[in-house]
Amino acid sequence: MKTEAITALNTGAVLEITLNRPEVRNAMSLAMVGELRQALAQAESTVGTAQAIRVVVLRGAGGHFCAGGDLKDMAAARMRTLQNAGDAADPIAHVNAEFGHLCAAFANTPLALVVVLEGTVMGGGFGLACVADVAIATETARFRLPETSLGVVPAQIAPFLVERLGYSQAKRLAVTGGRLDAAQALAMGLVHQQVATGEVDAAVQAVLANILACAPGALAATKALMAKARWSAPADLVDEAAAIFSRAVQGPEGQEGTSAFLQKRKPNWVPA
Amino acid sequence: MKTEAITALNTGAVLEITLNRPEVRNAMSLAMVGELRQALAQAESTVGTAQAIRVVVLRGAGGHFCAGGDLKDMAAARMRTLQNAGDAADPIAHVNAEFGHLCAAFANTPLALVVVLEGTVMGGGFGLACVADVAIATETARFRLPETSLGVVPAQIAPFLVERLGYSQAKRLAVTGGRLDAAQALAMGLVHQQVATGEVDAAVQAVLANILACAPGALAATKALMAKARWSAPADLVDEAAAIFSRAVQGPEGQEGTSAFLQKRKPNWVPA
Amino acid sequence: MKTEAITALNTGAVLEITLNRPEVRNAMSLAMVGELRQALAQAESTVGTAQAIRVVVLRGAGGHFCAGGDLKDMAAARMRTLQNAGDAADPIAHVNAEFGHLCAAFANTPLALVVVLEGTVMGGGFGLACVADVAIATETARFRLPETSLGVVPAQIAPFLVERLGYSQAKRLAVTGGRLDAAQALAMGLVHQQVATGEVDAAVQAVLANILACAPGALAATKALMAKARWSAPADLVDEAAAIFSRAVQGPEGQEGTSAFLQKRKPNWVPA
Repeated sequence: MKTEAITALNTGAVLEITLNRPEVRNAMSLAMVGELRQALAQAESTVGTAQAIRVVVLRGAGGHFCAGGDLKDMAAARMRTLQNAGDAADPIAHVNAEFGHLCAAFANTPLALVVVLEGTVMGGGFGLACVADVAIATETARFRLPETSLGVVPAQIAPFLVERLGYSQAKRLAVTGGRLDAAQALAMGLVHQQVATGEVDAAVQAVLANILACAPGALAATKALMAKARWSAPADLVDEAAAIFSRAVQGPEGQEGTSAFLQKRKPNWVPA
Repeated sequence: MKTEAITALNTGAVLEITLNRPEVRNAMSLAMVGELRQALAQAESTVGTAQAIRVVVLRGAGGHFCAGGDLKDMAAARMRTLQNAGDAADPIAHVNAEFGHLCAAFANTPLALVVVLEGTVMGGGFGLACVADVAIATETARFRLPETSLGVVPAQIAPFLVERLGYSQAKRLAVTGGRLDAAQALAMGLVHQQVATGEVDAAVQAVLANILACAPGALAATKALMAKARWSAPADLVDEAAAIFSRAVQGPEGQEGTSAFLQKRKPNWVPA
Repeated sequence: MKTEAITALNTGAVLEITLNRPEVRNAMSLAMVGELRQALAQAESTVGTAQAIRVVVLRGAGGHFCAGGDLKDMAAARMRTLQNAGDAADPIAHVNAEFGHLCAAFANTPLALVVVLEGTVMGGGFGLACVADVAIATETARFRLPETSLGVVPAQIAPFLVERLGYSQAKRLAVTGGRLDAAQALAMGLVHQQVATGEVDAAVQAVLANILACAPGALAATKALMAKARWSAPADLVDEAAAIFSRAVQGPEGQEGTSAFLQKRKPNWVPA
């Protein structure tokens, strides 16, 4: 896959994606949105193969994560809107929805998703931070929701803020502009770990080791069940959970896991 | 508007409402409930006008926030219940529902809501603390849910506790009587900031500056979208969010915000 | 009630249940699951009687809480599955669902539930920790979700993790294997209090005093209403909450509570 706005590096079961427009603090252009979705889809398409990607690590080039949406794309969409006033389509909504679909795709992926947050984490970048399974921040991370101070709405981000932080904390950030440093983000569970810049790679490797110790199918099934549990009382999920459990026990991962346990060896999904 | 149980002071876009029955630690009488609803409705009616109220600050007189429902009103309702035993109406439920509608009105207002919590924050006062967008507490704040120790149920408050703290933490407080000091309330996200009594006004001003930097329409749209996101998966909100975003970009606030940004000046909604 | 896998000790309104298979760190056998459900059902059947149980304290024998499901039962179920390949029933799913029903029963009980977490808190034990109203941990507590590293899914536990920790934090633990010590569990609200081993009994007594100060019917009504509030906006619950409140005020607990308050004595549900 050829990319301009991102780089993608494959090491074993890990795909490291780097937002790569450091000259604009990795502002998210439409091209970047498209490349991110394509990279994720391609990674997901490897599931079940010998070369399967199991974890995506998302970070930014040049000491920043992401400064949010690229205003040039939005300006161009606005121009198109003005030119096609009689048209049914809404180019601004279209550009914005593309970003929303990107967030949803990363939020719902069966793969594990780790983000590394450094420097600027603004607007759309803030949104992406919220969808990750594991968020590691350096002490340089600075969060911000600038939208309402520009007269617009963090519309695609708002639902992911609620998902990550709960309604009440999300609302507080939205009303006050969402300025946070790394320590504050850690205190409210927006990030899970704060490390010094020099220790990021070691921290990522430690998290990857924990993730790769989990059977990939079992991990995906757990994520999917938890997504359902956001909207269903536990008692209503007992039978479905039991069926998922039984399938896992009788499937190849369950059999390999049991054998490995009895034979006191690592199961075959743990990298050597 | 004439008021007895509260005072309301209008300064620019900010309405400061003070619960003003210090002799009973601002216990909430039916009159106070009525005046609070009326004051909020009046503030909301200014939206879009030149004199628009954008933020409500709610606090208590005399070093306490609010000691909960006034028992005299409940006793009177009880008396009416006993006298009209054959009547279909339930005066006790009616009085209680009035308080519930008050909480719901403050929870759902498009305005920003800041509370200052000092001294006693009990029962209904605890409930009001939970609906605020931003809650600032002094070190004197003491929280308590006394209802079950009196044989009754914190019925209108319970859903707002769940909204604010999550189901699990809310349940824990309910089962154990909900005693918390300011530091404990801060640790669980019930309040967002703890300050010394002498620093309250500065803290409020700093929060107000952050809120007033946000375009009021955009802020209201964000709050409304987040309220929806409590009950809908983000992926299901992508199109609606995109429409909201497009409307904001093309509306007067979006245009003013963009112009101000390009002209390196403050947008017209920021107070001088 | 005769029990093998647990012991149950009744002191006044408190039932202390101890998981009692210390030789296997109280791993949960099918027998234990059955006995726990029976003990809870029996306790619930006393509600409203003179000998009513109001609180269940759940702990483990021998310095551990619970190591999760007993693998022997699962192996036996697997054997039955292999032998009855043509059969419609799924013994593995059945064993797993039994545990799910147990968790749901403890999660939905009208009684107050306190857990004491020491040593190993793994898998199913982690799940039980999540359903408690109040969770006290000693510094020895070590949490772990080992399922996915064995190729299976923490299926019955997953919804209770979401209920306890919120979706985002639950997902993070699931993806990384859920290793936590007591301090980390405290920081994320999985446990509510961390105490030294020697102080556990005093901490439990203090919590019990708070719980027993609450009228039992009012406490149960509050728990039930909060469970509903997980799935309904507060504004939609105003009328139902008002009816619950009115019933409580006019019921025996409300009348006793008011009388006791006016007479400056303890209400009759507070132990002498």
